[in-house]
Amino acid sequence: MKKLINDVDTVIADALKGIELSDACVRVDHQNRVIYRAEKTREGKVAIISGGGSGHEPLHGGFVGVGMLDAACAGQMFTSPTPDQMLAATTEADAGAGVLHIVKNYTGDVMNFEMAGEMAADSDVRVETVVVADDVAVQDSLYTAGRRGVGLTVLLEKIAGAAAEEGRDLDGVLEIAQRVNENGRSMGMALTSCTVPAAGKPTFDLPEDEMEIGVGIHGEPGRHREPLASAKEIARQLVEPILEDLDFTGGDTIVMVNGMGGTPLIELYLMYGEVHALLEAAGVSVARNLVGNYITSLDMAGCSVTILKADDELLELWDAPVKTAGLRWGV
Amino acid sequence: MKKLINDVDTVIADALKGIELSDACVRVDHQNRVIYRAEKTREGKVAIISGGGSGHEPLHGGFVGVGMLDAACAGQMFTSPTPDQMLAATTEADAGAGVLHIVKNYTGDVMNFEMAGEMAADSDVRVETVVVADDVAVQDSLYTAGRRGVGLTVLLEKIAGAAAEEGRDLDGVLEIAQRVNENGRSMGMALTSCTVPAAGKPTFDLPEDEMEIGVGIHGEPGRHREPLASAKEIARQLVEPILEDLDFTGGDTIVMVNGMGGTPLIELYLMYGEVHALLEAAGVSVARNLVGNYITSLDMAGCSVTILKADDELLELWDAPVKTAGLRWGV
Repeated sequence: MKKLINDVDTVIADALKGIELSDACVRVDHQNRVIYRAEKTREGKVAIISGGGSGHEPLHGGFVGVGMLDAACAGQMFTSPTPDQMLAATTEADAGAGVLHIVKNYTGDVMNFEMAGEMAADSDVRVETVVVADDVAVQDSLYTAGRRGVGLTVLLEKIAGAAAEEGRDLDGVLEIAQRVNENGRSMGMALTSCTVPAAGKPTFDLPEDEMEIGVGIHGEPGRHREPLASAKEIARQLVEPILEDLDFTGGDTIVMVNGMGGTPLIELYLMYGEVHALLEAAGVSVARNLVGNYITSLDMAGCSVTILKADDELLELWDAPVKTAGLRWGV
Repeated sequence: MKKLINDVDTVIADALKGIELSDACVRVDHQNRVIYRAEKTREGKVAIISGGGSGHEPLHGGFVGVGMLDAACAGQMFTSPTPDQMLAATTEADAGAGVLHIVKNYTGDVMNFEMAGEMAADSDVRVETVVVADDVAVQDSLYTAGRRGVGLTVLLEKIAGAAAEEGRDLDGVLEIAQRVNENGRSMGMALTSCTVPAAGKPTFDLPEDEMEIGVGIHGEPGRHREPLASAKEIARQLVEPILEDLDFTGGDTIVMVNGMGGTPLIELYLMYGEVHALLEAAGVSVARNLVGNYITSLDMAGCSVTILKADDELLELWDAPVKTAGLRWGV
């Protein structure tokens, strides 16, 4: 295993130190492993909180900042944060207007955020939750009942973050988050496995001439394995199941081609070209896009495609200023 | 070889299509393989042009846009663009105020940009050149006489781009570029080789328990190989040679921890923490930083550190708005 780390037991603590030192917009509660905005949430603003297992950076800590998250809880590698972490983040970030929990649909995350929400209610903090479930690859999976929450989480955190920033109340922010969740779909693939530091070896074996279509962001099995194919064919196998699941014609979309962590940008640009061409041929209009590493799986090579139907309101919220380590524009 | 490509012969052409489709701020001359700003350089503004072998994305094409480059020439993989490409970019981007060529110090790049500059002079376009030579690892190398040009190129393109954007003349922009070049140093390391698509196999062999210290961005040999060490020790081996080469105390610096393409962000954050701690201990003040993939070597795992002494003027130019695929803030 070749990694830039000190010790398999200190990877997350060490990375949190680096995040705090590099990003002037955040502060880190190292005890609870929560990343907060450097400045306290302004009075009366809905607080947006997310979190999940580490290993998906920049998600979620890299999306803390003006226009996006107020706090992010960092779990162990590929493991849900604890309810205690989430409760600390929730009560600390609440500024009197309530808190939205953005939860990727994995059994542990859902259970722990639910518990944290109940505990927060005991402290009179109102919490609403959106469970992101955008992965069309499989219905149930290794750690999930129902669809997994993957790339759409990035778009949802941006758009819900903008809605909270412009002063909408908790019901309003929740409605926007639900709208994003209902209108977005994703599908991913892997060329290689990832290696969890503590395990020291690849999570799964994938022969040199094969790829996994529909892989999860922790290396969970996807739909099937097959011989390595061209970028054009891979794009087809990611885009078609998405378009079969939801009609994306007759309006605008936001499209993300996301790298899994070990895939260089030149390949992601190339994949974007193929994805865009397929969407154009299918009559899907792309209004905005993201190409890069936004929700990763440690060092896995591969990519995912996320498509979101975006009405004018969602596009406006997308375009609103954001200042985070992972996404920044307008400021 | 596992890559998201269609054919080893069309990687660059296909990636250029993806760049054009994803980045509304650029247009691509596919014939000459030059990426331009979507809008013509405004009359009287110095044009900033760079380019080099492909495989280092987002460098250089991802840095074309307001506040940074006017045009970037994409060579074959790890191979200098031709003088014809550079001449096309130079004459097309010139807006009457002359052109600055930003050239990484590799023999082919230097020779071809020099030839293009001479040809441009025949067309009455004034060209000045800065040859970036920041890599302290080795004096001469596989493709270079003198020091190689690596990570500092990113910082130089940003700062010179800002100087041109605010209307300085060619002498003024050149002076800024030279000041950056004189005050910045870099050093890199590799955990793994990269694989050039046309070669189909790793450029060099690096045993599972070894790393290469001082590697070049094309996999050129560095200073030495040694057993894999901790992130803290690797950071020391990158930072110390830089600090021995130039005194960075007594002022501010801009620091970049750059990924080589196959290293996930969590490891880069962790490395930044180690680098920052070493600089603090050495009395070096970090005013700004970048952590991410900015000048890559295809799928190589590893990282590099760049440090630039930055006076108030350089910091102001650094902070000026930039709108490119690879770097964006303030707009």
